[in-house]
Amino acid sequence: MKIALLGLGQVGRSFLRILAENSDYYEQRVRRKIEIVVAADFHHVLHAEYGMDPQRLLYYKEKGDIWGTGYPEIDRESLFDKEFDVLVDLMPATSDGIRARDLYLTSFGKSRDVVTACKSGLANFWPEIMSAASSSNRRIRYEATVAGGVPFFSFIQECLRSSVVTRIVGQVNSAANFVLLSIAKGETFDHAIEEAGKLGILEANYHFDTLGNDSAWKTVITANSIFGSALKPHNIRFEGVEGLDPEVPGLKYTRLLAEIAVQDGKIVASSTLRKLKQSDPLASLKGKGLGYTVYMNGRAPLTVLEFNDGPTETATAVINDLLLL
Amino acid sequence: MKIALLGLGQVGRSFLRILAENSDYYEQRVRRKIEIVVAADFHHVLHAEYGMDPQRLLYYKEKGDIWGTGYPEIDRESLFDKEFDVLVDLMPATSDGIRARDLYLTSFGKSRDVVTACKSGLANFWPEIMSAASSSNRRIRYEATVAGGVPFFSFIQECLRSSVVTRIVGQVNSAANFVLLSIAKGETFDHAIEEAGKLGILEANYHFDTLGNDSAWKTVITANSIFGSALKPHNIRFEGVEGLDPEVPGLKYTRLLAEIAVQDGKIVASSTLRKLKQSDPLASLKGKGLGYTVYMNGRAPLTVLEFNDGPTETATAVINDLLLL
Repeated sequence: MKIALLGLGQVGRSFLRILAENSDYYEQRVRRKIEIVVAADFHHVLHAEYGMDPQRLLYYKEKGDIWGTGYPEIDRESLFDKEFDVLVDLMPATSDGIRARDLYLTSFGKSRDVVTACKSGLANFWPEIMSAASSSNRRIRYEATVAGGVPFFSFIQECLRSSVVTRIVGQVNSAANFVLLSIAKGETFDHAIEEAGKLGILEANYHFDTLGNDSAWKTVITANSIFGSALKPHNIRFEGVEGLDPEVPGLKYTRLLAEIAVQDGKIVASSTLRKLKQSDPLASLKGKGLGYTVYMNGRAPLTVLEFNDGPTETATAVINDLLLL
Repeated sequence: MKIALLGLGQVGRSFLRILAENSDYYEQRVRRKIEIVVAADFHHVLHAEYGMDPQRLLYYKEKGDIWGTGYPEIDRESLFDKEFDVLVDLMPATSDGIRARDLYLTSFGKSRDVVTACKSGLANFWPEIMSAASSSNRRIRYEATVAGGVPFFSFIQECLRSSVVTRIVGQVNSAANFVLLSIAKGETFDHAIEEAGKLGILEANYHFDTLGNDSAWKTVITANSIFGSALKPHNIRFEGVEGLDPEVPGLKYTRLLAEIAVQDGKIVASSTLRKLKQSDPLASLKGKGLGYTVYMNGRAPLTVLEFNDGPTETATAVINDLLLL
């Protein structure tokens, strides 16, 4: 499997690190060899017909410039002239999602599958992107767009095929909840942002996290993917965590939660601040955790929790998508 | 997909109930029609070339005798003369597992796949069964054998392909933990057994649960399936919950837990009573709950919890296997 890897931020670098470590395991266990034939960051697009060494890319990226790897540089425009199977989008979100939509539509048109960790394109143009994929007979996977490294779409699609999902409640964005819980502990907003930045859990533009856009995008993607709706971010009610009053009672049990449910045959989605019962398993998640509860018809709900999400975990979700393609 | 459904105990009847309710959903969403062409309990084997109505089978089973359905009876020996794709084994465990092993080997030889909820065959004859499946080019799925209705094998196989699993700790048998926690609350063993029976979470021979065999079988199946070992139940250390002293300190945080780990390249498996920290998410599970934590190389562990498992949940795991085949 030849891939074009676009974006070498925190998730992209984790992707390289994991690939360097686990390549042999993937070949042995899953019989899949993932070869990076194109790698791009903001400054350069490199190409190597027979694959690049992820360790070498990582080394030069961390030193400051992937150009140092010596892999030949190509024009950004000639990307699709190169031979590869899957485009992997790990680039930062733009608020309108147009950049991502155009890229995916071009990919499908050029007979490439897509794996993405970028939310805004899917959240803003779900029907367009899915119908383009389907009419080109291409696939798009987006596990890493919701709940970071916690398996979510693959869990529902593969493990819960036999059940009718009726409601999902989840802490799907760690940055906003990290800031919220820092404020609950008496820290300042600015300090919380600084700490979240160090953990690598912030969007490049952190207001996407703290104003609630990121969680809203995730909510919309979930609703559209799992419940078949065609919502856009402006169709749902969403809140952020900027300007929170640290004195609000019970703030430490409050979370920014996505909720999507079928009520009387209608899909209702929101991403709002809600106080959890202490006994709710989601309340055990702290600021770095992610998780969700899935409710289903006629059977007990299931909860999936991860107490410490970050770019490494998100990168495992991206690679899992590649291994599932 | 035509199936032969063997076993109409609690899980078998739940299977029929869910199939009756969700058949249309499966056809629409997963494009899969599950047709029961053979149905058998301890007394009768019925056959209907064009499929049976699950509701009708359930009605007569609950009334006392599936013979009342009017579907023609066949000899147990002529089972494989009938046309079907998958044998579904929901029959009670026998301690040696020979009944199950022989049935699966015959199934593979007759070009049928197998989906099973029965543990003892797989736990006692894992290498034989897997090599027979592989040499006949047939598949066997066994999601329901471990952790009831909590997705487990499908979770690790589909959702965690990109990570190297190093350790699994789980409450994988609810009956033993239900009895243990009832004793911790001051109830008698006999009363706990009676209550567990009403919930439908006991093996037909309840000593398999309370002496720890069931949890040991699950531990062995997990070790062999996920870590590639060839263990048998007598190779691992296991305990039960008979004769527990209610005065043991911290009994309410004690659980019968399966643990399988790779240590210095060696696979270590056990099913023993262990006291959990109060903060361990598995400690939030009460007697009817099931769940586990998966530890992986270089990334945060994941915990999956279900607070109320029973035959319905187990039946969803069996059907999920059919939908994944």
